[in-house]
Amino acid sequence: MQQADYIIRGDYVLPMDESYSVIKDGAVAVKGEAIVDVGQYKDISKKYLSKKIIPGKNRAVLPGLINTHTHAAMVYFRGMADDLPLKEWLEKYIWPAESKWLSPEFVSDATELACLEMLKAGITTYSDMYFFEDASGNAAKKIGMRAVLGAGIVDFPTISGKNADEYLGNAEKFIEKWKGDELITPCIAPHSAYACGPETLKKIKKLADKHDVPIHIHLSETRWEVEDIQKKYGRRPIDHLYSLGLLYEKIVAVHCVWLDENEIQMLARHKVGVSHCIESNLKLGSGITPVPQMLRAGIKVAFGTDGAASNNDLNILSEMSTAAKVHKAVSNDPTVLDAKTALLMATRLGAEVLGLGKITGSLEKGKAADIVIMNLDKPHLTPLYDIYSHIAYSSMASDVESVFVNGKLVVVNRKPCSADEGEIISKAREWSRKIR
Amino acid sequence: MQQADYIIRGDYVLPMDESYSVIKDGAVAVKGEAIVDVGQYKDISKKYLSKKIIPGKNRAVLPGLINTHTHAAMVYFRGMADDLPLKEWLEKYIWPAESKWLSPEFVSDATELACLEMLKAGITTYSDMYFFEDASGNAAKKIGMRAVLGAGIVDFPTISGKNADEYLGNAEKFIEKWKGDELITPCIAPHSAYACGPETLKKIKKLADKHDVPIHIHLSETRWEVEDIQKKYGRRPIDHLYSLGLLYEKIVAVHCVWLDENEIQMLARHKVGVSHCIESNLKLGSGITPVPQMLRAGIKVAFGTDGAASNNDLNILSEMSTAAKVHKAVSNDPTVLDAKTALLMATRLGAEVLGLGKITGSLEKGKAADIVIMNLDKPHLTPLYDIYSHIAYSSMASDVESVFVNGKLVVVNRKPCSADEGEIISKAREWSRKIR
Repeated sequence: MQQADYIIRGDYVLPMDESYSVIKDGAVAVKGEAIVDVGQYKDISKKYLSKKIIPGKNRAVLPGLINTHTHAAMVYFRGMADDLPLKEWLEKYIWPAESKWLSPEFVSDATELACLEMLKAGITTYSDMYFFEDASGNAAKKIGMRAVLGAGIVDFPTISGKNADEYLGNAEKFIEKWKGDELITPCIAPHSAYACGPETLKKIKKLADKHDVPIHIHLSETRWEVEDIQKKYGRRPIDHLYSLGLLYEKIVAVHCVWLDENEIQMLARHKVGVSHCIESNLKLGSGITPVPQMLRAGIKVAFGTDGAASNNDLNILSEMSTAAKVHKAVSNDPTVLDAKTALLMATRLGAEVLGLGKITGSLEKGKAADIVIMNLDKPHLTPLYDIYSHIAYSSMASDVESVFVNGKLVVVNRKPCSADEGEIISKAREWSRKIR
Repeated sequence: MQQADYIIRGDYVLPMDESYSVIKDGAVAVKGEAIVDVGQYKDISKKYLSKKIIPGKNRAVLPGLINTHTHAAMVYFRGMADDLPLKEWLEKYIWPAESKWLSPEFVSDATELACLEMLKAGITTYSDMYFFEDASGNAAKKIGMRAVLGAGIVDFPTISGKNADEYLGNAEKFIEKWKGDELITPCIAPHSAYACGPETLKKIKKLADKHDVPIHIHLSETRWEVEDIQKKYGRRPIDHLYSLGLLYEKIVAVHCVWLDENEIQMLARHKVGVSHCIESNLKLGSGITPVPQMLRAGIKVAFGTDGAASNNDLNILSEMSTAAKVHKAVSNDPTVLDAKTALLMATRLGAEVLGLGKITGSLEKGKAADIVIMNLDKPHLTPLYDIYSHIAYSSMASDVESVFVNGKLVVVNRKPCSADEGEIISKAREWSRKIR
């Protein structure tokens, strides 16, 4: 018998491995930060001794969900301005609020709230693009969440810097500080090809190569963006990035709503991962991303929530459900983006898009124990014929009961283990009274 | 001082009256089955005495949500077959299961589960189209839910009848039995213009006129349906119903996905109410309903979940969120279907579409006390700048805390008052073991 720290049992264990196996009355054995075994409970219980056995009746055990794109701290602007054209929303509400309120303290407090919301929705890893990312990293670590944090870069002055060189200098300091952290992966996050000129993008590539970190960038989100890049550089956005050497496998391309067939092939050929933020794209009226076409071309597509100011939540389960439904209607084909594919995109593909495929995204021996326990004992999850279908189409964030990140219990019975929910909510209310 | 049975307090009371008022620190006074007053708590508390005061800190109080179309008992087939073309889904899975399992006992047990799910999602009134509606009515009354129940009519034999005349006879008996019930409104529910020929539809109209009851019908759901009706009758579906005298204000037209501009004008002119089931339409790949165009034409459009076999839940909050987002994207305009309009469709317009506009759908003096109390003290509802925006875009069914129907508390702290949740779930599991 070997010793395990936890044996997590479930009526349904979904490893999200290559064969989409469903282990009935399964279990996951965890030791330290890692998964040491996955299988049927009767086998696991013969091999491992553990004082902590988490019971699994009417429970599903699945990999932690991956949110491949957000601006976590924008959660403090949730619902501040809705149902508006993008330009008015940004210029009249979001930018003025950011330039007035952003600070390390704001980012720290707001990120705590965002992480709490995400963990309670079963998200164990998120990828962020914002400013004051040191504050964000401290907040994520405090609550115990895995994150890829992108130091934001634009060509114009903001509250966090004067110009591209200052942002780049900050980004390098940020990378050096966080590289090797067990939970935080630093990266570089140029806002977009319209907010960063070619010279800045080339410097970013150089810095990314130097430190071997990924680059996250908004790409082809709106029709306006495509026209703007064409006007400025005589090329569509994907071609423009290619010409600058920025189309390669460490790029996480966020949105990719407006692509032609050639661009889809280019993304596939260069192994660029795509973050699909359907609820944000729909709500801002940006358009509908050709996800089924991208998946057919072999592109890794995963889900992102975008910021809560444009969504208005940080909930990958609802992104799955919305995406699976919308792409069926748009394709006129109810077989596209089936429940299994949706959950794959929310887990393993999400981790691979972020460059964390060896660390998280599935329940497999040797990977980090990033695990979600879902309570199926609810009217809206009854009866149960197909567990994938229930997770993709019927479950809610509130069905997430307990969550592990890196072998540590961070949510138990919907309560955070290393944070005070009431205090986080109170702080958010205080900030919002000032911001209003 | 007058006596009230309940004073329901809320930081935000949303009456959903004509002026979209938001009453801060508001209250609703309830006596017997009815709302006797709505206003600020300080005024209500001076006018009414009540032993039962429901506290309102961090709570929103809103009218019960209206689900204008479902097949409640199909909840037992939830997730049995997904990601399939409509024809295969119906012919290989749903129809065989129905013909094998449907019975009054099945409908009774399944409807209890559906009602429990709906009440816990803040739905106080639903409109049903199915067979064995007596069983459905008994189940709805037992749990305390308001319902419009449509006795299903088709031209072919099913487990519940041999032919149209038998269904019509049963429908008349059903109407006579339930007419005048305080919670149940009987109606007639021809499946569609392709499943009911012109003679049947004319007889249905006559029966509806005789008893002054509404008619619910699936209409223009798929492109196939439009082509089929055109082939058979030389007219598009709306024109076909008009030619039979079935385009009038007591018709509830369900789906209306495939409409041309002329048909939109016809629906408006004849005051036909529309039930918009966006998640079902998306998931089955049926298409995208022209809702903004219908609203602009003055048509009353409300939300329906459709059956849980094609959705896969009975959740009007998520229909609101999905519809508000999808129509923005399809219209390329983020200002369409704003948060207020979405909540209006889910409440007052829903009641009006069902012919219950004088009884429910808003918190106004004299209307029945169909009331939802939502708990806003959650990370995903923090901070709060705009209550409409939170309900439309951020809330989940699990935020519904307590529910009144017709002056009676039917859900308290997410537990049903006159049903045993565990028993309802157990029964569903027993049935599903047989059905599987």
